[in-house]
Amino acid sequence: MFVAMNRFRVNEGRDAEFEEAWRGREASMEEVDGFLQFMLLRGDQPGEYVSHSTWVSREAFVGWAQSDHFRRVHSAGMPEGIIAGHPRASFYDSVLVERAVSRA
Amino acid sequence: MFVAMNRFRVNEGRDAEFEEAWRGREASMEEVDGFLQFMLLRGDQPGEYVSHSTWVSREAFVGWAQSDHFRRVHSAGMPEGIIAGHPRASFYDSVLVERAVSRA
Repeated sequence: MFVAMNRFRVNEGRDAEFEEAWRGREASMEEVDGFLQFMLLRGDQPGEYVSHSTWVSREAFVGWAQSDHFRRVHSAGMPEGIIAGHPRASFYDSVLVERAVSRA
Repeated sequence: MFVAMNRFRVNEGRDAEFEEAWRGREASMEEVDGFLQFMLLRGDQPGEYVSHSTWVSREAFVGWAQSDHFRRVHSAGMPEGIIAGHPRASFYDSVLVERAVSRA
């Protein structure tokens, strides 16, 4: 698996607007080839957020990042003044994966 | 959901030993209450690793962190000289989650 994270620093008092901008996104990821899961994560530190996506492989992520769908997802953008500085992207390959036994 | 990450800086040339120490762990997470998934992630930056676990809730993680199972998992430890400095822990609550449609 492959994990892409983008770390955001949200200005004081703008958390609700930041989350709302993510909730309002129209494009869905669920049909994208090789996509497994997206999470918007709120950290324990004030204003700390991470957009976090998991993929079957790095190739699947890179393929999406070069697609029209990627451009559509990112075209809406974020209102000014909400984010401090630029988001910081990090990319990871999984070395080990362990899943819970199904409790179904 | 709740995500716990621990960031490690591994000394130059020690990556294989670091990964081997994780592979050699005897305790399994799969039966732990509220546990969903563990990944050991290798970052694109040299020596950058993240241990990454996903839980149904923060309460589930905290419960495990106070358990005998947690102490057993962490008792083996890491041989000296592999990690630079101390790992840095970060904790996150999910604000949004989107999953791929099942392709089964």
